[in-house]
Amino acid sequence: MVEARKIVGICGSIRKESINKALLIEAGHFLPQPYQFEIADLANLPLFNSDLEDEVPESVQILGKLVGEADAVIITCPEYNSSITGALKNALDWLSRPSTGTPLQNKPVAILGATPGVLGTIRAQMHLREILFALNMDLVRRPELLIGQANGKFDASNHLIDERAISILKDLVGNLVGKVEMKRETIIIG
Amino acid sequence: MVEARKIVGICGSIRKESINKALLIEAGHFLPQPYQFEIADLANLPLFNSDLEDEVPESVQILGKLVGEADAVIITCPEYNSSITGALKNALDWLSRPSTGTPLQNKPVAILGATPGVLGTIRAQMHLREILFALNMDLVRRPELLIGQANGKFDASNHLIDERAISILKDLVGNLVGKVEMKRETIIIG
Amino acid sequence: MVEARKIVGICGSIRKESINKALLIEAGHFLPQPYQFEIADLANLPLFNSDLEDEVPESVQILGKLVGEADAVIITCPEYNSSITGALKNALDWLSRPSTGTPLQNKPVAILGATPGVLGTIRAQMHLREILFALNMDLVRRPELLIGQANGKFDASNHLIDERAISILKDLVGNLVGKVEMKRETIIIG
Amino acid sequence: MVEARKIVGICGSIRKESINKALLIEAGHFLPQPYQFEIADLANLPLFNSDLEDEVPESVQILGKLVGEADAVIITCPEYNSSITGALKNALDWLSRPSTGTPLQNKPVAILGATPGVLGTIRAQMHLREILFALNMDLVRRPELLIGQANGKFDASNHLIDERAISILKDLVGNLVGKVEMKRETIIIG
Repeated sequence: MVEARKIVGICGSIRKESINKALLIEAGHFLPQPYQFEIADLANLPLFNSDLEDEVPESVQILGKLVGEADAVIITCPEYNSSITGALKNALDWLSRPSTGTPLQNKPVAILGATPGVLGTIRAQMHLREILFALNMDLVRRPELLIGQANGKFDASNHLIDERAISILKDLVGNLVGKVEMKRETIIIG
Repeated sequence: MVEARKIVGICGSIRKESINKALLIEAGHFLPQPYQFEIADLANLPLFNSDLEDEVPESVQILGKLVGEADAVIITCPEYNSSITGALKNALDWLSRPSTGTPLQNKPVAILGATPGVLGTIRAQMHLREILFALNMDLVRRPELLIGQANGKFDASNHLIDERAISILKDLVGNLVGKVEMKRETIIIG
Repeated sequence: MVEARKIVGICGSIRKESINKALLIEAGHFLPQPYQFEIADLANLPLFNSDLEDEVPESVQILGKLVGEADAVIITCPEYNSSITGALKNALDWLSRPSTGTPLQNKPVAILGATPGVLGTIRAQMHLREILFALNMDLVRRPELLIGQANGKFDASNHLIDERAISILKDLVGNLVGKVEMKRETIIIG
Repeated sequence: MVEARKIVGICGSIRKESINKALLIEAGHFLPQPYQFEIADLANLPLFNSDLEDEVPESVQILGKLVGEADAVIITCPEYNSSITGALKNALDWLSRPSTGTPLQNKPVAILGATPGVLGTIRAQMHLREILFALNMDLVRRPELLIGQANGKFDASNHLIDERAISILKDLVGNLVGKVEMKRETIIIG
């Protein structure tokens, strides 16, 4: 029997109709069996404050456990004011701490983002890459997925309908899966 | 009678014993008469969510009003995971919105930061400068103030005791004041 | 009689048919009387090497003098591998040195860029802004001009024909001129 | 018989007494048998210009061949004006081109830098990482090596004498070697 794999999805936007949440759900659809996909809830996290770490808030514990048990992470990254959102940075800051078990360390991660403008969240992704480097995460380098003018690329049911974006998304998810499998199945001959 | 000037202080850390909060308070001490200094409260802001903008939360309204009435802003910027804190990004995201009156636009701003390590928050300040550029703020370019190995540079009462840092901080605050006064007193002859 | 003003144009690309050189020439066309515009030659600069500073090469001396006599600088910034070109960085490194008189310090500067892709040189401009901050230049913050899919926006004679880009370029050049005039004509009343 | 491995060293500074060249030589000393180490010559490269690609200059051909035959790259990265040097960017631009065979693609790379100041080339390394990401290189993420106040950390013969820096450098080189060996010796079981 094949062991389950778990991927955690993190969306930088916490609003209901977020196009990046729709994108994250689509990313999950491209995961193969036996991959399970769960989207983290960032909205209930308190602002990070080391004073709270003596008694870690329940929402933070839940997030830490979810990420800790996952094989990899997918982050959809809206761009606010040329950078990542406060909500995303806040979650990453919590997850960088011993109080959550630093569950991001060395974990494979894929990033992508969608935006109404033409720049496709590139500035946010540049900042995010530096933060993920600080967190020592194992980033999928290719393909890059920047979805500009995103409003026309999803249908009324929030499904991605742009053929090129779909194709790149499949490759990106496939490469993340490849990293996970490589970690599990590699034998180093000395 | 001279009209009052108002400066808002924003600290990226919301923990009680934050060295950057101590630094911000010190910065305020170097403001001349008739400058008034008030430190914003970021801890009670909800995570930014455009769904909340129909009825802007009270803590956000208070922050928007405070910044809107200010002549300039001072930001002390801790570095978490090579970038600014989620709490700071969250506040800036709220302040970038029409629902708060976009009070940061064109406003003079000085940034500085302290950290236990040697890099003095440089990575966070680099990200912050890009965000402030996106917000079209009028940044004081010199001097730069990066306080590394900060724990030894404050005394038990949280006063900055490093002579060089004090001197640079005075210059930085002075240059911010200079920008404010320049804006008020400039006459352009055509 | 009105005194002449001088603007130096710097193009990050040194190839003959550079679209950014065409863009730079167009920028010069929007300078009003009595502004003079001269484009610097980067192609003949040696790679920066402090060993050469005892006897500054002639091409470097010429560049240093040209920039030193200018009131402001316009930089068109192609993007190579997500950053500015080696040729541009090399010129800026030479111009940062006492051996050229550090002629960039405090000088007003406008930046812009064109590229065949959709991202419009944003990554290069982000790096360039950090470098210009290090050089303590006085950057025109608005408008930003990123010309993506640039090949269709110039005609066969290398004239910019995209109405929106032309309009933004006029504003950008106008704001640079505004900075120069402000510096010359400001009187501070104490 | 074990096959030779080749590592190319690239130093961002081309001056004679460069501390980063000394550092690069030291890095080479920590390569195990049967690794061969050769330092590339950037000083004779012309400024990149696509007009020259029809007939690639000999110095560029030599560099392209050297990197093409290497298993991995070590880059020592001085910081000029908050970024990498023009000489280094110029070399990377040449090496990104089909005319040199794009020899950097997917190649393992380790970066490090030394500087007289306290910031240890962090700003240059941040830019360099973004450029190496654009080039799709396989970066060694840990340890980071930033040698600040470097003048006191080398002896009169240009040997690194700081114990902590030596230890980190050994680990960094070791991890680069690990990546090279992993690529060669991995068997994936399906």
